[in-house]
Amino acid sequence: MTPEAIQAAAARMRGHVRVTPLLNAPLLDRLAGRRIFVKAECLQVTGSFKARGGWAAVSTLPAGARGVLAMSSGNHAQGVAWAAAAHGVTAVIVMPSDAPPVKIERTRAYGAEVVLYDRACDDRDALAARIAAERGLALVPPYDHPEVIAGQGTVGLEIAAQAAEAGIDVAEVLVCCGGGGLAAGIATALEVRAPGLRVRTAEPAGFDDMARSLAAGQRLRNLAATGSVCDAILTPTPGALTFPILRRLAGPGLAVTDDQALRAVALAFSHLRLVAEPGGAVALAAALHADDLPETVICTVSGGNVDPQVFRAALDRFGC
Amino acid sequence: MTPEAIQAAAARMRGHVRVTPLLNAPLLDRLAGRRIFVKAECLQVTGSFKARGGWAAVSTLPAGARGVLAMSSGNHAQGVAWAAAAHGVTAVIVMPSDAPPVKIERTRAYGAEVVLYDRACDDRDALAARIAAERGLALVPPYDHPEVIAGQGTVGLEIAAQAAEAGIDVAEVLVCCGGGGLAAGIATALEVRAPGLRVRTAEPAGFDDMARSLAAGQRLRNLAATGSVCDAILTPTPGALTFPILRRLAGPGLAVTDDQALRAVALAFSHLRLVAEPGGAVALAAALHADDLPETVICTVSGGNVDPQVFRAALDRFGC
Repeated sequence: MTPEAIQAAAARMRGHVRVTPLLNAPLLDRLAGRRIFVKAECLQVTGSFKARGGWAAVSTLPAGARGVLAMSSGNHAQGVAWAAAAHGVTAVIVMPSDAPPVKIERTRAYGAEVVLYDRACDDRDALAARIAAERGLALVPPYDHPEVIAGQGTVGLEIAAQAAEAGIDVAEVLVCCGGGGLAAGIATALEVRAPGLRVRTAEPAGFDDMARSLAAGQRLRNLAATGSVCDAILTPTPGALTFPILRRLAGPGLAVTDDQALRAVALAFSHLRLVAEPGGAVALAAALHADDLPETVICTVSGGNVDPQVFRAALDRFGC
Repeated sequence: MTPEAIQAAAARMRGHVRVTPLLNAPLLDRLAGRRIFVKAECLQVTGSFKARGGWAAVSTLPAGARGVLAMSSGNHAQGVAWAAAAHGVTAVIVMPSDAPPVKIERTRAYGAEVVLYDRACDDRDALAARIAAERGLALVPPYDHPEVIAGQGTVGLEIAAQAAEAGIDVAEVLVCCGGGGLAAGIATALEVRAPGLRVRTAEPAGFDDMARSLAAGQRLRNLAATGSVCDAILTPTPGALTFPILRRLAGPGLAVTDDQALRAVALAFSHLRLVAEPGGAVALAAALHADDLPETVICTVSGGNVDPQVFRAALDRFGC
């Protein structure tokens, strides 16, 4: 992964993918005891940063490619479906049957064909490989793909520019982390564009494979596959491409409880007027709760495709 | 009101007031049957466009002024309180005792002294005049004040630039309207910067004093003072300064029901990941429901300081 690849992805997505704002709120800072800046990727087209990687990958398909296939529980699904529709190519998305209904419905609304599988019984990878082969579709993985990482890395270019404009030279950049595509992309961009900004990953407690892998110096797996409200970022293990990047560039990983993630959802509602999903709010939760952070932190709110029942529960639980 | 005054206000607020994004969502457009672009002022500092007018007014106080006094049920209160604190001057805000608790609490959190009055018994204007005289405070009215209108007009400068960037030459710009400060400011800016964009006001049905006044060619009053969920924009009559501007520049006014405003709150949640308050969502509601609109509309989502119970009710009612 190179900064040049990220720059090239940014050039291809101009006018299609949105430059999202870097937001802050005085009352939130007071609550946290530090300055928190939020990179609001929940305002991205399709409601998460995944539109960037989707666009970057689909826009570099070989000429004559019939279409794309992706496996995703929701946000990558929508990002790829939207990008494929905009490029006029077919998208087939393989989704678990227990994915949040709102994410399945919206993936279809963007024009993709959704193939559901049973997490317990079906072999997802075999199913996807068969469909891709039969129909001549190119696989777009959610994070272990150079163009996908380059696409997500455009968030880092924007953070570098927006931090400079806000007078921020030194800060930690907390990034919601599943397989590590967003964090690896941002870290690559910041290394060159804003060397005083250091990436740290944020994950749900119990699903902090990246934090543990970074500490151990090798890729480790989560013990469970499900069991957190942060559905968007429950990946089994760090990516083969993303892990070496983060091992070289990222600080120690952070983990937050589901309750802390839901509190961050509620505070994003109250103080930032943003709709965040729990998995997209773990970095904000870490910014609010972690105790080894500097005076200024930037965090991604990386997705807002929240199940309305979960959103209500967050408001109920945290007295909003 | 001149475009130059708006430009001067924009220069004074740079680095303090946020340039808010112009958002759109393919699935929302499909639902509406037209292209809808949303100027997301709920993402403004203090959660509404009122931070602009507050800053514009406080930053032009005469040297040596002791502070400011404002009357407001909530958003203007917060905008003035925040701007006064940033300028290091005292703010006293006279608020009705039945204002949404979250708005009273946040006005205090920004450092203002809040004086509550009873809508039924107390003479608000006399109370405010007495406090202002006793304590040597300058009155900052919510809309009938040249600097306040100029501050709100900076939204229009941004819309002109953002519409041009999005390739929009001709559109209607629907603006949430209480006393008309935001609409008059935007209309003044657009007349010069984007003459193909025409302002139309949006109000709650039954509180559409501006629409009726525009139709009649003279300032008319609402019959009731309360009785809509759109608390932010229940002003009794168009402003003396704002009405002539809108009479010259605005198209026919629009009105929406409370239910339509709550549906717009729910759709902003689902499709834009924005937290809107009902009074800040009436323009989006008009964009979704009015039948005499062009193919492309821009609308303000002008505030997001929503009572959480009202927000939950909107989600419950509209099946999100």
